[in-house]
Amino acid sequence: MAGYFITFEGPEGAGKTTILGILQDELSKKGYDVVSTREPGGIDIAEQIRSVILDKKNTKMDSRTEALLYAASRRQHLVEKVIPALEAGKIVLCDRFIDSSLAYQGYGRNLGIDEVLSINEFAINGLMPSLTLFFDIDPEKGLTRIGKNDEREVNRLDLENISFHQKVYKGYLLVAERFKNRFQKINADNPLELVTKEALEIIESHIRK
Amino acid sequence: MAGYFITFEGPEGAGKTTILGILQDELSKKGYDVVSTREPGGIDIAEQIRSVILDKKNTKMDSRTEALLYAASRRQHLVEKVIPALEAGKIVLCDRFIDSSLAYQGYGRNLGIDEVLSINEFAINGLMPSLTLFFDIDPEKGLTRIGKNDEREVNRLDLENISFHQKVYKGYLLVAERFKNRFQKINADNPLELVTKEALEIIESHIRK
Repeated sequence: MAGYFITFEGPEGAGKTTILGILQDELSKKGYDVVSTREPGGIDIAEQIRSVILDKKNTKMDSRTEALLYAASRRQHLVEKVIPALEAGKIVLCDRFIDSSLAYQGYGRNLGIDEVLSINEFAINGLMPSLTLFFDIDPEKGLTRIGKNDEREVNRLDLENISFHQKVYKGYLLVAERFKNRFQKINADNPLELVTKEALEIIESHIRK
Repeated sequence: MAGYFITFEGPEGAGKTTILGILQDELSKKGYDVVSTREPGGIDIAEQIRSVILDKKNTKMDSRTEALLYAASRRQHLVEKVIPALEAGKIVLCDRFIDSSLAYQGYGRNLGIDEVLSINEFAINGLMPSLTLFFDIDPEKGLTRIGKNDEREVNRLDLENISFHQKVYKGYLLVAERFKNRFQKINADNPLELVTKEALEIIESHIRK
């Protein structure tokens, strides 16, 4: 496909969403045709699936059901939004993708990275991102950042389950090692300006290849 | 697990649902503790997922999204209904299960039997049926039967053209060959009395093993 599929990954509070917004502006200013998105991305079917996952009444949801629903939502978002943009030659910046499922469900919830990978390979049908920026921050530090940000609502569980977030972080490191050809780690503990500058350089170097 | 997990498969109009009802009565009369079910089986989360699949407005649904949603619904039905019954030592008769997905989505919709198997293996996590009754009927004959039955509502799949149903049938034969250890073919073109008698004998012989 003509475009570039670039994903943003990292623990809560790494600053991914903010950085993605800045990079979209910077790349657009430089004349690139950029689309930024995150699942379910306003895709009606993907939103319907997501509302089943997030419905607080669904307390009996099994973690394998949840992982399959995330993969289903991912598939539909990919088909309706990402693939058309890539076919039109655009740069697609996607806030979280397959690696979030591998780290959160696969490792964090003990379903197994390989098993969650297999259902996601079915979902993406070969469309792996060509570049994944991993915004690396200690999960405890990330959660503290979220706590200081008044605009973002903090889930009580975010703060309580630090050991879960540490496990997810370890999962990310395993995933980054496995997919080292497309992973680029960026120290997200640095000042925002430095982090975005580094991310921009990596993206431009990737596109020029 | 203490119970027996037995699935009923076959083309539309093979008579599965009718036969399953009769067998439940017969086995109950003989003193067996029997549960009959079909996905989504009244399980709230599975019903929510199924309503996304069946919503006629969702015309843009990709066939991989659909297959993942079926697998998710299957998982939840298994966890909330089938596994508890098996743990309680019951005979579970399930109208359609994994092989329907392999035949319809895997072969019928060209997703690949192996690929659809892999997401379903994730969903069932080792809980394959120990016996699968395949009610064998020529798909054209089966559809004619449905057409004659005024009480049965014709759904979207029924209306697919005959060549799709013939393809699904071929898919079933491939699946039956692959899983021949658990598959038992029954000629569903025979009179109902004969079909149910044969099915009952197979089930009782399986249970006595």
